[in-house]
Amino acid sequence: MNTYANPILVNFTPAQVVKPVPQRLALEVSAYGMARGYCKLHGIDSKEGKRQALAEMQSKFNKYAVSAEQIRRRQLVFFPQLKDIRIAGGELVLAEPEYAPLRIFAGPDDTKGADLKVRHASYGQIVGDCLARMYDDDATAPDDLIHVTCSGYLAPSPVERLVARKEWFSTTVTHSYHMGCYGAFPAIKMAHGFLASAHHGVTAPKERVDIVHTELLSAHNNFEDFAVENIITMTLFADGFINYSVCSDDYVRRHGLPGLRILAFDEHLLPDSADDMTWVPASHQFHMTLSVMVPVVIKRHVYGFVLALLGAIGIDFEADKQALMFAIHPGGPKIVEHIQEELGLRDDQVAISKSVFRENGNMSSATVPHILKAIIDESAVLPGTRIVCLGFGPGLTVTGLVLEKI
Amino acid sequence: MNTYANPILVNFTPAQVVKPVPQRLALEVSAYGMARGYCKLHGIDSKEGKRQALAEMQSKFNKYAVSAEQIRRRQLVFFPQLKDIRIAGGELVLAEPEYAPLRIFAGPDDTKGADLKVRHASYGQIVGDCLARMYDDDATAPDDLIHVTCSGYLAPSPVERLVARKEWFSTTVTHSYHMGCYGAFPAIKMAHGFLASAHHGVTAPKERVDIVHTELLSAHNNFEDFAVENIITMTLFADGFINYSVCSDDYVRRHGLPGLRILAFDEHLLPDSADDMTWVPASHQFHMTLSVMVPVVIKRHVYGFVLALLGAIGIDFEADKQALMFAIHPGGPKIVEHIQEELGLRDDQVAISKSVFRENGNMSSATVPHILKAIIDESAVLPGTRIVCLGFGPGLTVTGLVLEKI
Repeated sequence: MNTYANPILVNFTPAQVVKPVPQRLALEVSAYGMARGYCKLHGIDSKEGKRQALAEMQSKFNKYAVSAEQIRRRQLVFFPQLKDIRIAGGELVLAEPEYAPLRIFAGPDDTKGADLKVRHASYGQIVGDCLARMYDDDATAPDDLIHVTCSGYLAPSPVERLVARKEWFSTTVTHSYHMGCYGAFPAIKMAHGFLASAHHGVTAPKERVDIVHTELLSAHNNFEDFAVENIITMTLFADGFINYSVCSDDYVRRHGLPGLRILAFDEHLLPDSADDMTWVPASHQFHMTLSVMVPVVIKRHVYGFVLALLGAIGIDFEADKQALMFAIHPGGPKIVEHIQEELGLRDDQVAISKSVFRENGNMSSATVPHILKAIIDESAVLPGTRIVCLGFGPGLTVTGLVLEKI
Repeated sequence: MNTYANPILVNFTPAQVVKPVPQRLALEVSAYGMARGYCKLHGIDSKEGKRQALAEMQSKFNKYAVSAEQIRRRQLVFFPQLKDIRIAGGELVLAEPEYAPLRIFAGPDDTKGADLKVRHASYGQIVGDCLARMYDDDATAPDDLIHVTCSGYLAPSPVERLVARKEWFSTTVTHSYHMGCYGAFPAIKMAHGFLASAHHGVTAPKERVDIVHTELLSAHNNFEDFAVENIITMTLFADGFINYSVCSDDYVRRHGLPGLRILAFDEHLLPDSADDMTWVPASHQFHMTLSVMVPVVIKRHVYGFVLALLGAIGIDFEADKQALMFAIHPGGPKIVEHIQEELGLRDDQVAISKSVFRENGNMSSATVPHILKAIIDESAVLPGTRIVCLGFGPGLTVTGLVLEKI
């Protein structure tokens, strides 16, 4: 194997900005917030009217929201924390967050919240704090640092501010933005390319490209949109922060690191599905639409995609299927199951993808890296195991990586 | 030379969406629009009050705006076109644009304009139309298509919609967003990397990566912000659309194309300048700040940067200076001159950078590709000439490429 051509993913390190909120509580608070938004927009201010609106919202949530059985807890930075929530006189009372950047709602009656510029300023602060902890005083400069997000676009980005503050003036920062849930894949491809370009002599030698994901989906909650779609996305998506490195063989050997070697990747669009998932910045938050066709389209194409992805490096999917592990982006509660069925996989081949979803929700682009970390940490996945990673997102786009545990 | 390591930039093809507006007229209309915004926000509605506000705004424009001597014309899609402008009773009368996506202002009294979501929908339509002309029925599928913009973030992007509509299901679309004026550089680095990765066997073989820039800065005009900074940016930035390809040697030879071979690149942050230039999505448009320190910081660092960039591939700047050409991003009216002075360059070495600015304004990331096209087209720049490209943007970031005309 030409090891220079196959750098290795190492050092997956998630960060926690706030304690995750149990889904049961998140559902209650979200339904409460949306009922409040509903009353405000419809001029309902009697106690009875409010009670009825809440009951109706709760029943809508019971029907459509992602349940506490499907997701146990989610990290939600822009959301009341446990200590800020109490019940008084049968009403939910939410204390104001202590930390100013978290106050994107002016008070309990403000269901619209701050506009996009203010939310971006908060995003910058929260992500800046998080990065400062991720890259503490002991951190060394990577050759490149790729920032992945679909939830906050600042220039300079918090990553650029970090690198400037650290005086890492030989590090190149690249933004890999607005590619939704599949954001890890383009970033890993870029990292692979940056190392390959350096190997070709067009830049200084490189051995370590860092990738950092900062997804703050909770900054985009909308309590004045009562559509089923919004109930689903608000109870499905979570915040997620993780960094990792794509390193040369030499670097990994020198540091004695476990990791995942990159063997192959591919990515393309799927037909007739452009309107099935959209994500666009609006005045107060980014806005998502999601059609019921998404799992159908993915299911229709995933088998052919996996066959070709593996076939390109001489792996026969049907012949080698039993030995493969899978890291599948769990976009919704059912998607991993659908793909498992379609590809004919055992439970243990997709168990980690399912459990990362159950324990975290959909952290957008940060989800797949959490799955990859768990695969490295899982001793039952032996060195030499090939891992098929699959991601999906707006386009619809299907993307895949083949990795090998070392 | 390892030619695989040094792919070639070819086929720079700009697109025109609307006829450029002469700067003299753009200044008049912009001052008029901002005076109108001023009157609205300050409750001025007497004829005399309006006349006075306009006179004051015009004198502010005379003092601070980028003049018609500095820029002759700019392409401004979201701006009254010549045919829509007339003078009646001493007043400027603007007809409503015929094409619906261009109507982001409800009428002459709406100086706020549509919110960010509506502007994004318009952006999607305009860019979609433009791409359909760029990639007409004769267009063939590139292996990769990198979309560069800092002025509109849709998922799916208009580029993804194009590729899906064309059924180019072997083409990978990558977004390279929110890197401001220097956006061409990261995209060219990505393209170089994608070809290098393919060469290493982790993807199917690749020989052509397309890059397409769609910059619609006019969608972000703000007629209710009367700060000097806003007058400068509103009269400096322009829309720009261009695509080109990064191709393997084989491909270029087979098609007999002139072009620019990639020899080296480098990019990093500059110290203590994070707040000197910012760009962030707000409720109605993206918002820019720009400090007077920008040219000072760039001037302070450019010599060392160029020395290192060239030194890395064995070119001694001082020894070889006379033979080099320069493609310098003309961020403002003075920046190229500053750099010319600092590096001690002749007029003809920077003439194309200056003339592209004068004829187009600052088209953000689309500017440098326009300069590169002009360098390919200029027969006085002989094959074998090395071209130093320099870009600057938020961070502050300095970035450079060394190319060789073939």
